[in-house]
Amino acid sequence: MKKLINNPEDVVRENLAGMAVAHPDIIKVHFEPNFIYRADAPIQDKVAIVSGSGSGHEPLYNGCVGYGMLDAACPGEVFTAPTPDQMLEAAKIVNSGSGVLYLVNNYSGDVMNYEMAAELAMSEGIRVLNIIIDDDVAVKDSLYTQGRRGVGTSVLAAKICGAAAEAKYDLKQIAELTRKVNLNGRSMGMALTSCITPQKGTPLFDLGDNEIEFGIGIHGEPGRERLPLKTADEITEMMALSIIEDSAYKRVLREWDEDKEEWTDIELIDPPLASGDSVLAFVNGMGGTPLPELYIVYRKLAEICEKKGLKIVRNLVGSYITSLEMQGCSITLLKMDDELIKLWDAPVNTVSFRWGM
Amino acid sequence: MKKLINNPEDVVRENLAGMAVAHPDIIKVHFEPNFIYRADAPIQDKVAIVSGSGSGHEPLYNGCVGYGMLDAACPGEVFTAPTPDQMLEAAKIVNSGSGVLYLVNNYSGDVMNYEMAAELAMSEGIRVLNIIIDDDVAVKDSLYTQGRRGVGTSVLAAKICGAAAEAKYDLKQIAELTRKVNLNGRSMGMALTSCITPQKGTPLFDLGDNEIEFGIGIHGEPGRERLPLKTADEITEMMALSIIEDSAYKRVLREWDEDKEEWTDIELIDPPLASGDSVLAFVNGMGGTPLPELYIVYRKLAEICEKKGLKIVRNLVGSYITSLEMQGCSITLLKMDDELIKLWDAPVNTVSFRWGM
Repeated sequence: MKKLINNPEDVVRENLAGMAVAHPDIIKVHFEPNFIYRADAPIQDKVAIVSGSGSGHEPLYNGCVGYGMLDAACPGEVFTAPTPDQMLEAAKIVNSGSGVLYLVNNYSGDVMNYEMAAELAMSEGIRVLNIIIDDDVAVKDSLYTQGRRGVGTSVLAAKICGAAAEAKYDLKQIAELTRKVNLNGRSMGMALTSCITPQKGTPLFDLGDNEIEFGIGIHGEPGRERLPLKTADEITEMMALSIIEDSAYKRVLREWDEDKEEWTDIELIDPPLASGDSVLAFVNGMGGTPLPELYIVYRKLAEICEKKGLKIVRNLVGSYITSLEMQGCSITLLKMDDELIKLWDAPVNTVSFRWGM
Repeated sequence: MKKLINNPEDVVRENLAGMAVAHPDIIKVHFEPNFIYRADAPIQDKVAIVSGSGSGHEPLYNGCVGYGMLDAACPGEVFTAPTPDQMLEAAKIVNSGSGVLYLVNNYSGDVMNYEMAAELAMSEGIRVLNIIIDDDVAVKDSLYTQGRRGVGTSVLAAKICGAAAEAKYDLKQIAELTRKVNLNGRSMGMALTSCITPQKGTPLFDLGDNEIEFGIGIHGEPGRERLPLKTADEITEMMALSIIEDSAYKRVLREWDEDKEEWTDIELIDPPLASGDSVLAFVNGMGGTPLPELYIVYRKLAEICEKKGLKIVRNLVGSYITSLEMQGCSITLLKMDDELIKLWDAPVNTVSFRWGM
């Protein structure tokens, strides 16, 4: 294993220490339990949004903390869910009294720990709602997931819901918006290579010299199938069509019912994309993919969207939700409307997202 | 070779095509000869800055075209200097009559071609000055270079000089500023792994499982020495001290003398960094390095700078001048003063740099 690290067990802490010293104008870091929060938190009269999953997906979520996006991010160990005490302490620091939204990616460990954290926070008088992102069309049920995994849409949800919080949406409105973003978003990924976690020290999985993993998860979880290497255009078309031709997906997600004061299963169905829809097209690198390859994919994706009657009204191209140094990419299409466009365009100032100010 | 490409010979063109369709608000792309230019070019009463080197270093320079940075970028084939016709045609499109600065990285092919382009442009009545960046302290003379190579400082020069152009510095003033940035900047890089160019299809060089190349160039050119793998802290210290303890460096660079109307060798000496200096600290990933590793390096770098009496007043952490998917990093320290800080902070709106607007 060749990495720019000291001890594998210090990677997360030293990363946070580096971020703290590099960006004191934007973030502060709390250690033990570990979380990053807005330097100016808590923000009065604003719902706080807290997210975070395993480390190794940077810049998500650490780079997303700041004005117009997340109030706090809780990084777990690499590819490991953060713990409830991280989530609880983060909520306590960023809550201004307007409540906290836990933005949760659909991995069993994350879902369970955020539920536990929400209960702990509520027992301390903090109003909390948990909303789950499950946008990966690749597989239903996976190594660490029941139902679909949460991938690229979580980046977009953090931006859009963060802007809504700045615009003074209340907690229920932000929860509703987050559900809408989740239902409007669909993703599909693939890998050319594996990655090596600092703890394991060897590749998470093996791919032959001419193989790709189609439908990969962001922790190397197996995808739909292992295929021979194809051209970028062929791979892009397969990914794009998996998303565009995906049928309505009915999921059951657990949310806190504030009236009944209990966790409740709610059924949510995302309608398929249809000709005439406006979309945000997000081409994401898995970490080790050179930027030109992402633009080669984007080029083909734009062509396919046009053919299918989808109008790309916004885009994002770059490595935002990664799997360490994995080579590969994912595509996310998020159906947009005027509200989502306005919130996407709103000013943001985090370590990795900065515009409009 | 596993890459998200179609044909190796189409990589540069398809990358440009993808950028064109993704960012029409910021850039336009010209094909044959290939270059990217500001969508709103030419800008009246503003010096135009044109740069570009071999492809494979993205987001430099393609992602640096836009308000407050470059007016045009000329991408060569991967790791190959662009041709004079690219540079000439770019200059013709972006020149508003206030002249053009060619910002040139010190590689023999680039230097030669930009000189030829300058002569062609001048013969068409465009006022042009060429300024060279040669900031790499690793080696004197290298595979593709006489003298020191141009690396990380070129990113910073593009930002700072681009802001100066917006602030209506004239051509001579921008040339003088670019010289100052070059003399104030020092860089040092290292690689954990090689990269694979689409053309060659196999690794550019071989590194053992426990080896690093210390002082690597951005095209895999050999560095100072091949060393056993060390910790991030040890590597950071070696890089930082190479820069901080570098003595005054005297170089002879060819520039156009407008009075004599001929190319003239000018001698330039950069004073060493000294305790009390303010610096911009730039930790750059070579492409395949996960962001947390860069922050682990930054953390140690900040500690060393503090010990050495260097005050970090600004920073940049990310993969900005890359070598495709190479794993490794470089450090650049740029001595700052009030003028440079003001220009660094000025608004910018390119594909990869966006702040203040």
